[in-house]
Amino acid sequence: MAGVSPAAASNLAQQTPSPFSFSVASTRWSSRPSIHLSNVFLRFLALVFSFVSALSLAAVSPNKETQFTDYPEFIYCFIVSILSFIYSVFQLFKGICDIAHRGILMSDMISDYTSFILDQLVGYVLISSSSMAIPVIRHAQLTGSLWRAAITSTTISFVTSLIFATCTLLSGYKLCKRIIW
Amino acid sequence: MAGVSPAAASNLAQQTPSPFSFSVASTRWSSRPSIHLSNVFLRFLALVFSFVSALSLAAVSPNKETQFTDYPEFIYCFIVSILSFIYSVFQLFKGICDIAHRGILMSDMISDYTSFILDQLVGYVLISSSSMAIPVIRHAQLTGSLWRAAITSTTISFVTSLIFATCTLLSGYKLCKRIIW
Repeated sequence: MAGVSPAAASNLAQQTPSPFSFSVASTRWSSRPSIHLSNVFLRFLALVFSFVSALSLAAVSPNKETQFTDYPEFIYCFIVSILSFIYSVFQLFKGICDIAHRGILMSDMISDYTSFILDQLVGYVLISSSSMAIPVIRHAQLTGSLWRAAITSTTISFVTSLIFATCTLLSGYKLCKRIIW
Repeated sequence: MAGVSPAAASNLAQQTPSPFSFSVASTRWSSRPSIHLSNVFLRFLALVFSFVSALSLAAVSPNKETQFTDYPEFIYCFIVSILSFIYSVFQLFKGICDIAHRGILMSDMISDYTSFILDQLVGYVLISSSSMAIPVIRHAQLTGSLWRAAITSTTISFVTSLIFATCTLLSGYKLCKRIIW
């Protein structure tokens, strides 16, 4: 922008009044690596957090009287964390394949559509499951270890849903580029 | 776009293998009315549903022993419905202004960004509030009228969150067009 004349600069500002316009002004291929890398990083974070969320519920000592399986809300939370973990493993694997060999798993078009829809879906379901666990933590008489596990799992599920919300932004951006270009 | 040569047009068609490419191939202004109209329709639906969701909780007879205000989860649900109602009123008003006078409230750029962020946020918060009410409905000993009101409110909140998810897609699409064009 340093060498642009004032008239051209104001014209440019009218046409693309966006802080993200640099990634569009550059070519498609040069903007790919940074998006791919941040995508892989976010997928890795989501994978770790989903795993910890599921593990913290599953690791409650089985000798105690109350298990997390006594509460349907915690089972829901557990299943959602497991599904989110599996989905993150798949996305991480695909992301690494994309960086290494540029897409051997499925076509870019199908992958962009399914990623966007599934990211959105997993984000909503994670928010829903962590919200649903909160009243049970508040009202039910939980034992100490189950209470701690539920708090940990719910908090981490909430953070994971934020990560998926960010992934949705990235995959939505990739999808929009595909639709428009 | 009208003066594009056939070779360039076929090249463009190869690059955009998408069912939505018609709205991009046409000019920006001609694709506007349908998006604007569906936007206004969705905002109107969201407005009605948020209002009914809040009303069904507020209309529980105040003579009964238990009120919805005894349960923080229902208060959360009520507040979220009211906020979603106010936001829908604003968006509906803006949508009608856009159709009538093409934007007198705020600049298109600010409106696209805030709409996308707030739609996303309201969708997540609505999912969260309706999920949080479900365990209370299951576990707490609610009176008949409050139980019915809570079921109604939760169901309608859930439907409203689906409407907001669709609004997010529309406003995300508008935002992407702004970023890329």
